[in-house]
Amino acid sequence: MILLTPGPLTTRISTRQAMLSDWGSRDSAFAALTANLRDRLVQIVHGEETHAAVPIQGSGTFVVEAALQTLVGADDKLLVLANGVYGERMASIAQRLGRRVEIRRWPVSSPVDAQEVKAALLRDATITHVGLVHCETTTGLLNPLEQVAQVVAEENRHLILDAMSSFGAIDIDVRKPPISAVLASSNKCLESVPGIAFAIVDKESLSRSSANSSSTSLDLHLQWQEFERSGQWRFTPPVQVVAATVEALDALDHEGGPKARLARYRDNFSTLLTGMKALGFRLYLDESVQSPIIATFRYPEFWTAGDGVFRFDDFYAAVARGGFLLYPGKLTEDKTFRIGCIGNVNKSDFEELLRVVADVLGTPDAR
Amino acid sequence: MILLTPGPLTTRISTRQAMLSDWGSRDSAFAALTANLRDRLVQIVHGEETHAAVPIQGSGTFVVEAALQTLVGADDKLLVLANGVYGERMASIAQRLGRRVEIRRWPVSSPVDAQEVKAALLRDATITHVGLVHCETTTGLLNPLEQVAQVVAEENRHLILDAMSSFGAIDIDVRKPPISAVLASSNKCLESVPGIAFAIVDKESLSRSSANSSSTSLDLHLQWQEFERSGQWRFTPPVQVVAATVEALDALDHEGGPKARLARYRDNFSTLLTGMKALGFRLYLDESVQSPIIATFRYPEFWTAGDGVFRFDDFYAAVARGGFLLYPGKLTEDKTFRIGCIGNVNKSDFEELLRVVADVLGTPDAR
Repeated sequence: MILLTPGPLTTRISTRQAMLSDWGSRDSAFAALTANLRDRLVQIVHGEETHAAVPIQGSGTFVVEAALQTLVGADDKLLVLANGVYGERMASIAQRLGRRVEIRRWPVSSPVDAQEVKAALLRDATITHVGLVHCETTTGLLNPLEQVAQVVAEENRHLILDAMSSFGAIDIDVRKPPISAVLASSNKCLESVPGIAFAIVDKESLSRSSANSSSTSLDLHLQWQEFERSGQWRFTPPVQVVAATVEALDALDHEGGPKARLARYRDNFSTLLTGMKALGFRLYLDESVQSPIIATFRYPEFWTAGDGVFRFDDFYAAVARGGFLLYPGKLTEDKTFRIGCIGNVNKSDFEELLRVVADVLGTPDAR
Repeated sequence: MILLTPGPLTTRISTRQAMLSDWGSRDSAFAALTANLRDRLVQIVHGEETHAAVPIQGSGTFVVEAALQTLVGADDKLLVLANGVYGERMASIAQRLGRRVEIRRWPVSSPVDAQEVKAALLRDATITHVGLVHCETTTGLLNPLEQVAQVVAEENRHLILDAMSSFGAIDIDVRKPPISAVLASSNKCLESVPGIAFAIVDKESLSRSSANSSSTSLDLHLQWQEFERSGQWRFTPPVQVVAATVEALDALDHEGGPKARLARYRDNFSTLLTGMKALGFRLYLDESVQSPIIATFRYPEFWTAGDGVFRFDDFYAAVARGGFLLYPGKLTEDKTFRIGCIGNVNKSDFEELLRVVADVLGTPDAR
């Protein structure tokens, strides 16, 4: 079964085989593995001079919450730039934590506008942090990171970047314009298994953030201090997931780094898009703002099989019988579904998928 | 390398091999795996009529925090019964969350006294919840669960039990006297890999707890509701860890359940204790309060090798060369180290360990 989702993904067998050993979590061999992981995460965003990687147990949402808990203090104010579910979630997490939050929204099909962000920052000097989702998994839209980072830097605020579904493929450079924190997880473009997430944070922000978190588990400051002090995780880490992720980083290097990985994803995406268009499907977003990470398609209007109503669950089941798991849409107003282009998959997998989809379209009894 | 720690542990190869597949986290096959996991966790504590299992990503500490966030409201008051690091941690987590907390302490070598708990509850009617650590991993001390649960029930308060290192081996029955919440993790007596933890909570408490958690990630009420609504995890779960844990539950059944597992651990412990005593080591606790989960030994006074000072790091390294990873002590006032008796290990492993330790004692150049 090939997973064409935003993660968990299809991983390499070598990545999964890295989980066949047991590790003592307080042993020096595991501390060395953790140090390796942390160093390489920092390198991916060019933060060797300024940033530290703080891995944490759990999913991407856990590290988003940990970053907001730890980096945004009670006297700070967070401006969240939202054009999808993950921007909304960032705002909602901060609100529940009792932080001061302003949310600025764009339509799900429109990228964040950096000039409007600049205007918002000029209007409100109490905003200290800006939250941006790099690639909105809701649609696959890629927000203009560099332009937003530029205006945030010009106005001397801190940028917290949710790079969950871009990290490891789309280039992120924390140096210029500076990015305070990059948040990512193991099971997206790094192509590892799920179980850990990471904040890659400038050390000055980490140093200043000791008093903020009311959560013990999600305190990135203490987590960072323990890594620096002893090389160990504060609380039992998923040792096998850490081992798999280091193996996945080896595979990323072997492929040629994020640039080569992005080229493969672009190849996957263009194969998919060309084929789906030929079958009559329409992409939800304008192609100019679409990332090659995950594609959102509208429910087909040409569907005539059965009672003439396209049902995603039936389509999903039919495509699954052909060996591929698709992903439901996440838009409330428009009927869509999604197909991920990331993971250990390549052009030939998408060619096979297109054959399966064509079969499903051509054989009403498969539905 | 055999891990003789409180976890992560030595697991079965079949448990690790269960991680060799990828899973779509929103697919029905994975929802079925999750349902299987949840049902069996509830069965282990005999909670089929009353309780629901709410797994969560992360380590044991994450689920302790999630339970305190979700079950103890702003108007409630938690009495923590502490005789070790994990009791102290429970109190500190609740304090950082801003909850009303009272802590009652016993020496690390003494079990919690149920009559003193009763007196404390009688004195303070505002106490709504009582937190107890079943087996204190700090020392290996087993607290008198039934007696404490009895007085908590008599006074109509809620018991939150940290059963991290007892769950799956030492019998826990949530029915009589009732236990509101049992907290456990995948990587201790269940003998799975680390990455998920569980709260097994009575459904009435879960139902009443919607307004309590300021954390989004650690909200057990919402986590429970999503499992009940869709069968899915709210946020990306470590799918391979879930698969390994279901496999580990199969292995627990195959062994004969918690009773048979405890018998094996008792055998491990008595082999270890007899042998260590013969070598001159002394157990830290009185044997009457010592669990067969993890044993704490004092630094040996008879040590004469080298400069005559016993250094745990050197001893650890020498025993590691023999194939076994031990565990440091966690007591501030007394010099101790620990040897875990849990995991996929048996009497013959401990016989071999004793040969290695004897060798280390007898051959100064190995140190």
